[in-house]
Amino acid sequence: MAKSDNQHDERSALYQRGMAEIRKQLGPMADGYIKRIKAMSPEFAWVNVTFPFAELYTRDVIDLKTRELCTVAALTVQGFALPELKIHIEAALRCGASRSEVLEIITQMIAYCGFPAATNALMTAKTVFDERDAADGKAKKPAKKAAGKAKKK
Amino acid sequence: MAKSDNQHDERSALYQRGMAEIRKQLGPMADGYIKRIKAMSPEFAWVNVTFPFAELYTRDVIDLKTRELCTVAALTVQGFALPELKIHIEAALRCGASRSEVLEIITQMIAYCGFPAATNALMTAKTVFDERDAADGKAKKPAKKAAGKAKKK
Amino acid sequence: MAKSDNQHDERSALYQRGMAEIRKQLGPMADGYIKRIKAMSPEFAWVNVTFPFAELYTRDVIDLKTRELCTVAALTVQGFALPELKIHIEAALRCGASRSEVLEIITQMIAYCGFPAATNALMTAKTVFDERDAADGKAKKPAKKAAGKAKKK
Amino acid sequence: MAKSDNQHDERSALYQRGMAEIRKQLGPMADGYIKRIKAMSPEFAWVNVTFPFAELYTRDVIDLKTRELCTVAALTVQGFALPELKIHIEAALRCGASRSEVLEIITQMIAYCGFPAATNALMTAKTVFDERDAADGKAKKPAKKAAGKAKKK
Amino acid sequence: MAKSDNQHDERSALYQRGMAEIRKQLGPMADGYIKRIKAMSPEFAWVNVTFPFAELYTRDVIDLKTRELCTVAALTVQGFALPELKIHIEAALRCGASRSEVLEIITQMIAYCGFPAATNALMTAKTVFDERDAADGKAKKPAKKAAGKAKKK
Amino acid sequence: MAKSDNQHDERSALYQRGMAEIRKQLGPMADGYIKRIKAMSPEFAWVNVTFPFAELYTRDVIDLKTRELCTVAALTVQGFALPELKIHIEAALRCGASRSEVLEIITQMIAYCGFPAATNALMTAKTVFDERDAADGKAKKPAKKAAGKAKKK
Repeated sequence: MAKSDNQHDERSALYQRGMAEIRKQLGPMADGYIKRIKAMSPEFAWVNVTFPFAELYTRDVIDLKTRELCTVAALTVQGFALPELKIHIEAALRCGASRSEVLEIITQMIAYCGFPAATNALMTAKTVFDERDAADGKAKKPAKKAAGKAKKK
Repeated sequence: MAKSDNQHDERSALYQRGMAEIRKQLGPMADGYIKRIKAMSPEFAWVNVTFPFAELYTRDVIDLKTRELCTVAALTVQGFALPELKIHIEAALRCGASRSEVLEIITQMIAYCGFPAATNALMTAKTVFDERDAADGKAKKPAKKAAGKAKKK
Repeated sequence: MAKSDNQHDERSALYQRGMAEIRKQLGPMADGYIKRIKAMSPEFAWVNVTFPFAELYTRDVIDLKTRELCTVAALTVQGFALPELKIHIEAALRCGASRSEVLEIITQMIAYCGFPAATNALMTAKTVFDERDAADGKAKKPAKKAAGKAKKK
Repeated sequence: MAKSDNQHDERSALYQRGMAEIRKQLGPMADGYIKRIKAMSPEFAWVNVTFPFAELYTRDVIDLKTRELCTVAALTVQGFALPELKIHIEAALRCGASRSEVLEIITQMIAYCGFPAATNALMTAKTVFDERDAADGKAKKPAKKAAGKAKKK
Repeated sequence: MAKSDNQHDERSALYQRGMAEIRKQLGPMADGYIKRIKAMSPEFAWVNVTFPFAELYTRDVIDLKTRELCTVAALTVQGFALPELKIHIEAALRCGASRSEVLEIITQMIAYCGFPAATNALMTAKTVFDERDAADGKAKKPAKKAAGKAKKK
Repeated sequence: MAKSDNQHDERSALYQRGMAEIRKQLGPMADGYIKRIKAMSPEFAWVNVTFPFAELYTRDVIDLKTRELCTVAALTVQGFALPELKIHIEAALRCGASRSEVLEIITQMIAYCGFPAATNALMTAKTVFDERDAADGKAKKPAKKAAGKAKKK
């Protein structure tokens, strides 16, 4: 059997549930994100949609905000996954976490991964906050106030 | 100045707050844990008590249960810190997390660290649960029931 | 919807294909391995069977022996996943890799992870080879000859 | 003995065999790569040429294509070595691996390192493929067709 | 108690000792570095100043040059912390290490982390050396001589 | 050319210099250590002797004690290489480092890898110190005094 020709049905309930979950977490960037992966490897994209998003994130044992904070913790200590950390800080904020909570978890992680990895995570959070402030039209305000905003809850 | 003779005051509010926090999280094993570290390096013990426990874990931005689940996530993906993961699964349970919640976060981490690290974390959770069951006098019951217990919420 | 009560059908073609693949790779230990995981977290077990084994390993783009050597390479450089490395060295041998080939990939990995991780992988391979020799009734022979056997192709 | 003045003979058979192997794997960029390292540390360059390339990659226990796929697997799970992963994806293609095979191994690695590291590897593969397409004069074709090319075997 | 409102006294001997130590190691960039962190998370900045710098680096058990070489070794093998490695290569040079010594430790680390991580560290060292040469007004000299400078002790 | 039949000359100056260096660092266990590796993979053993020991550790740019402290730092932050960390703590002590210096570097590493990895390194140091005390016939003394010994310079 030529399993590499494996036909995955993107109209299936499983795939649709996964895409709905990705859109909830990643917002407008969700479809483009999966599309880019699919252009390289349809198998990778299928597994990405159906496994973590359709299977795991839809389970109600843990609320989505706590899940995302745990993912922020995990990506912070790994140290090398800053593009994905950026996506999940965005997702954490979309799922109801405050900026203070995201920063608190990153700060807590100093104890488990040391300063270098935690500092990189902190600067990644800064990028996310700055981009959101810019998108909110707050970018024109003076730098000092923007810094103050970064600490807003 | 011979800073290696640095006198840290264990009666200080900072140190006492750290020890109280460790006892809250680790229970009866807390004092022995710090004592063993102190026998090797008083500096290490001082930093361990005052920094993560007195400084970080006592901040109220995030509740302790969420903090511990984040730490479980972090230690799961690191893969090499099973003795510390064991301690923090214990701590998560002491801080109000259910067994199901701990297992759910470990399962979620498959997506961020793959199966090997997640499987080792799962088996570490099993050790914790088994030890707690044994301490509760449940160890005498047949294996099948014990397995059922592992899934209890 | 209580997704934590998610009903996965173990009689499905997907699950059965995954279990068949696990048995092919892990041999007699396959069922017990999944059973132990399922006793802790049915979700973890479902994902473990259906994702890497049913989805990935059955695709024919790459032959199974090459896949297993790549997994041995990956687990060698990670350094912390020795129980899983042991399982995949077994699987590589079952899938047609020779002992020499397994040792060659571990030796090659020195260049990508340094000596400590590679040495631990080498010693893990030794454990696998010794256990197989013992199971073959070769354990009674003197140590020197057994060492010679370790190098057999 | 001032061992830092250690005279390594670049005309030796060992060094020449290593350089020949690097050129086979890295192509036209080989000499520049080693030259840049040598400008910083002649010792580093000597070890780089003589150890992995002259010693390991020339051994015939495993064919070069399988070796390179194993290295792609290793660098994928490490997560932090994207510049080197790029070089070895190039090398894998030069040694006879197809694009599909490289993508398959990266996809397989999801199971051993999770999505973040694997996604970064996938995007690194995309960069390599795009650069090769551009060098082949295919860059002028519309984006859709280029995406199709990425999947070509 | 609202511990998140924790009042840390930056005029305290502890904090001042930490800042003095950071300035000694990082030079003119020290204050800006901490300021950027503090704008995001005052707690992170407090811990960063008081713990590694005030507590650890001021202890006289090990001289500062050896400490910095050990930190260079640690950041080299981690592989993902290149911005911090850059800072600590700078710090090592400020604390009396020669360029040769920094390069020697990075080269030694090949044995403990393999070539990819060590190569990235080597290129990070090159960036530091080049920036220092440029700041010294040496940037105008021809490339060949600059390469020679890189090896100067 | 059957490069797998590669004849390495163990009577060569290179190999002999490597073995002499290993014996200097590891003491009486050196020959057994290499023998065990060689029984599995002669190529691995050859590279292990000739590359880090003959090539790197004999260079006089950095003294052996500093090299070993850097290796202790590297293995501490990696977290998974405790058997090798044990060997290099032994080697550091043989090369003139005091117990206090080893403990100081491990303590310093908290800042770069967090508490879990550093705690495991601390406990590995304890094992080394205890074994040396036992070998010195100090094991018969009461536990309290032994703890005091651990801190001796």
